[in-house]
Amino acid sequence: MIIGFDADDTLWHNEDGFQASHREFETLLSDYGDPTAIEERLFEIESRNMPKYGYGVKAYTLSLIECAIEISDGHVSTAQIASILDLGHALLDRPVELIDGVTDVLDELGDHTKMIITKGDLYHQLSRIESSGLRTFFWQTEVVAHKDPATYRRLLDLHGVDPSNFVMVGNSLPSDVLPVMEIGGKAVHVPYHVTWAHEHHDGDHEAPTIEHLGELPALLADWGLR
Amino acid sequence: MIIGFDADDTLWHNEDGFQASHREFETLLSDYGDPTAIEERLFEIESRNMPKYGYGVKAYTLSLIECAIEISDGHVSTAQIASILDLGHALLDRPVELIDGVTDVLDELGDHTKMIITKGDLYHQLSRIESSGLRTFFWQTEVVAHKDPATYRRLLDLHGVDPSNFVMVGNSLPSDVLPVMEIGGKAVHVPYHVTWAHEHHDGDHEAPTIEHLGELPALLADWGLR
Repeated sequence: MIIGFDADDTLWHNEDGFQASHREFETLLSDYGDPTAIEERLFEIESRNMPKYGYGVKAYTLSLIECAIEISDGHVSTAQIASILDLGHALLDRPVELIDGVTDVLDELGDHTKMIITKGDLYHQLSRIESSGLRTFFWQTEVVAHKDPATYRRLLDLHGVDPSNFVMVGNSLPSDVLPVMEIGGKAVHVPYHVTWAHEHHDGDHEAPTIEHLGELPALLADWGLR
Repeated sequence: MIIGFDADDTLWHNEDGFQASHREFETLLSDYGDPTAIEERLFEIESRNMPKYGYGVKAYTLSLIECAIEISDGHVSTAQIASILDLGHALLDRPVELIDGVTDVLDELGDHTKMIITKGDLYHQLSRIESSGLRTFFWQTEVVAHKDPATYRRLLDLHGVDPSNFVMVGNSLPSDVLPVMEIGGKAVHVPYHVTWAHEHHDGDHEAPTIEHLGELPALLADWGLR
């Protein structure tokens, strides 16, 4: 059995940094709208840019600048735009902070072959994998553009893994759970305390949900996977 | 024999679009410096940001904005920054323009197994591979963060290719030729008419240089590779 792990908000904290950045952005632009209006406009602009920009801090920073110019009708100052560039740099410079207990769980799963499958900006994700100190736990690490059934199928095929022999563990239903179940793999949902607006999902699913990654070894043992 | 192809400035035009964008940027900022001064400052800022931002249009656009703010001492206008965002969008929206004769050469090399190995932004490169219409010529397509010997070794290993059975074709000496020769592969240099400042290289190398991709089939035949 091969275990795939999502990284952002599964192995390390991510969305909380973006949420803190949103709050700073809203404060910076408070002359031009209330937090809800700014958040809504940013959501629209990110959605519009996503097919072209993809995911990650650089895409986010460019969308913030676009949002600031639009919502202020061009009245935002150059100094404020410089502060937005700094928000982006701060997110990229943020040290990787592992989720509690991750190292213990990976240790405990020592006999299982493990992969990281993460979505987003190639450079930032590779740099976080390196600086996380977790690299040696994993057989393979893959940064992908989209977590859809076709991508999972291609990756598993490339690495010679049959979907029936694969379980994916992550915090996102649309990215980590549903596409893997669709191609005949197993999935475990480990919710994070905040979910990015673009990853919200209300649908049903049959994957088990655990409160904390620490429950994963017992769940795998229940499935007879040791 | 597996043939690896670089994409930007090997299969399709890329750097000429960036060069045209540079010219527009210099015109936009002509109140704050002459073209040479702006180009030098941009080179510095891109070099400083590269370890964090990596390569690609989003990284370039963020560096342009940073450069505009710095070189104008904060006097650049919000409207000018909006124009810079538009330069980035224009580069991402630019249709893929194949280099003359590429399709014929790939057709002619029909019996060889071919890969694309390209560096840069994951989303933009995948979208260009799709819209190029070349996808079906290739066995595998890989977007990597760095084209160094370790990355080539990892990729070839993943795909079960021995370096002695691999030839890489591309326009960049430091990215396409030297690292592949270092791990025991062959390489063919096909210069493009302009080279990105960050890819300039003056060193010696023993790889053959061809003027045009159209000469590749004859060269491979000379090597006894049909």
